Amino acid sequence: MNTAMNAPTHSSTAVPALEPARLTAALEWRYAVKKFDTARSIPAVTWQALEHALVHAPSSYGLQPWRFVVVSDPALRAKLREVSWKQPQVTDASHFVVFAARVGVGDADVRRYAEHIAAVRGVSLESLAGFQGMMSKAIAGMGERADAWTARQTYIALGTLLTSAAVLGIDACPMEGLDGPRYDELLGLAPLGYRALCAAALGYRAADDANAALRKVRFPSGEVILRR
Amino acid sequence: MNTAMNAPTHSSTAVPALEPARLTAALEWRYAVKKFDTARSIPAVTWQALEHALVHAPSSYGLQPWRFVVVSDPALRAKLREVSWKQPQVTDASHFVVFAARVGVGDADVRRYAEHIAAVRGVSLESLAGFQGMMSKAIAGMGERADAWTARQTYIALGTLLTSAAVLGIDACPMEGLDGPRYDELLGLAPLGYRALCAAALGYRAADDANAALRKVRFPSGEVILRR
Repeated sequence: MNTAMNAPTHSSTAVPALEPARLTAALEWRYAVKKFDTARSIPAVTWQALEHALVHAPSSYGLQPWRFVVVSDPALRAKLREVSWKQPQVTDASHFVVFAARVGVGDADVRRYAEHIAAVRGVSLESLAGFQGMMSKAIAGMGERADAWTARQTYIALGTLLTSAAVLGIDACPMEGLDGPRYDELLGLAPLGYRALCAAALGYRAADDANAALRKVRFPSGEVILRR
Repeated sequence: MNTAMNAPTHSSTAVPALEPARLTAALEWRYAVKKFDTARSIPAVTWQALEHALVHAPSSYGLQPWRFVVVSDPALRAKLREVSWKQPQVTDASHFVVFAARVGVGDADVRRYAEHIAAVRGVSLESLAGFQGMMSKAIAGMGERADAWTARQTYIALGTLLTSAAVLGIDACPMEGLDGPRYDELLGLAPLGYRALCAAALGYRAADDANAALRKVRFPSGEVILRR
């Protein structure tokens, strides 16, 4: 597995940045789409960038205790819709991603991650023993709270995807209203050691989506942001 | 409270989008900064866009069960550093934000949110009774799992902020290695009904931050992304 040669480095050259006002406009433009335009598909190059955003989402230690399930089969999406309060976004959006968190994260995950670091960075596993031991100890210390921790991590990826979509001008609808255990069955997640938590439908808003006309509701920044 | 006049709508005009390749470059450029440049500050207009991103982060129902604490006082940041494994990012980054989730979310939050929707959208509270009842029922059904739910929501905002910073060319370091109860005390969060979960330091990487030279480690997309 020659991942080392393909792995990106953190280029320190300045990245062409989005101007702040354009970020603000993109985040005000986004909303939870209720009705998607069934005739429009996300272009391949744009979708690849969104998958890249998922793969590169930050996580604690970089452990990536998650799986992202891209569901393309229309029949399967129809079944998922049935266990998602029949929400039409499941079937009508261009793309549909399910976010699944690791169940029972532990030493095997930590070891696999350390081995991958060693391969990518071309260092010995021994040189990572301290980092590996620290991760193992922290996770062991979580006990039964470890599943809640991997679940929280997975929501970082959800935020990453939704923000990435907005700046690319792609509409989305995050969804928690789904039957997790049924999703796990339909997607074959349980044997893999992951559980479905939430999903995101992505594509383009329908011209007549009533939700698009609603004013965005946010508490005033002076209420949500505390200053110390 | 005349919020209605200032609230943005979801403009359906096309937003100038970032090209996919530029998003990809920005997300490869970002990493968890270990050593910040203490001499550089984020410009006010850029910081305002990042606070805007926090305020506009998506959440289930749009309930926003969180507070973001922007800590500017150097003495307080020094105290927080002491209970954050003495990590230098707490004091050395241009900006430091603590993410706090609602504890004991319930009917009072739902009612306050419904009242705010009514004010912003200029509709009657009665017209929102169905939505309000649905939220109340869902949250009541969570029982003691409600705190875990608001915690997960708060990580959406963390992902939103980290991605927003990356596209603006602002460096960041997400941090979970902190003593939550001590943070709650130092920031006065417990009496408000919120608890600190994680934080983000933001600013500019030091020219000699050793972490910047490390190859980014991600599992191959074929492993992390499942296709169905």
